[in-house]
Amino acid sequence: MIEKFERMAMLFDFYGKLLTARQQEILLLYYGQDLSLGEIAEEYRVSRQAVHDIIRRAEKILESFEEKLGLVKKFILEKEKLEKVLSLIDELENNQAFKQKIKKVIDEIVEIQQND
Amino acid sequence: MIEKFERMAMLFDFYGKLLTARQQEILLLYYGQDLSLGEIAEEYRVSRQAVHDIIRRAEKILESFEEKLGLVKKFILEKEKLEKVLSLIDELENNQAFKQKIKKVIDEIVEIQQND
Repeated sequence: MIEKFERMAMLFDFYGKLLTARQQEILLLYYGQDLSLGEIAEEYRVSRQAVHDIIRRAEKILESFEEKLGLVKKFILEKEKLEKVLSLIDELENNQAFKQKIKKVIDEIVEIQQND
Repeated sequence: MIEKFERMAMLFDFYGKLLTARQQEILLLYYGQDLSLGEIAEEYRVSRQAVHDIIRRAEKILESFEEKLGLVKKFILEKEKLEKVLSLIDELENNQAFKQKIKKVIDEIVEIQQND
C-alpha cells in the first residue's frame, strides 16, 4: 500500500496539472493529506462511492499519461545516472572545490526535474 | 518560420503521443516531411482548410500541454546544465579516462531525455 501511495504521489507530481481542479483537490486530500474516503465525501457532500470513483478514474488517467510519456520512468533513470556522475566524481583525487561545483550543478538539474 | 518549425518539432517530440493518431500523422507530414497543406489534403481526400484546421488545433493542444508541464522548457534548462557539467570537467587536469566515463554517462542522460 505504501508503494501504491508513493507511485501515485510521483504520478501526481508529473501529471497532476493535466487533471481537472476537482480531481487534483481530491487526490491531494486522499494521497497528500491522508483523508479517508468518508471524510472527503463529507467535505464535498457526495457519496463515499462517488469519491472512490473519482479517485480511481483520476488514477487511471495518470497511469495512461505515464504509459504515453513515461516521465516517472525517465526521472528514475536520470536520477540513477546523475548519482553515477556524482559517485564517479567522488572517486576523483581530493579536489573539494571542483567536487562542490559539480554537485551544485547536479543539484540544480534535479531541481529542474522536480520543479513544477 | 524556421523557429516555429523547430518549436513544433520539439513540442511534437515531447507531447506527440498525447495527440490522436490522425493528428500525429498530419503533423508529421507537415512538419516532418514538409508536405504542403494541398498535398496533405489530397492524401486524405479532405479540403485544404480542413487540414489547416487540424494542424492549428493540434498545435494548440501541444502548446497547452507545454503550458501545463513545461517539458520543453525543462529539457532546454537541463541541457544547459549538463553542458556546464561537461565544461567544468574539461577544466580538470588531463585525466582522459575519467573524462570519457563522465561524458558517457552525460550522453546517456541526454538519451533518456530524448527517448520516447
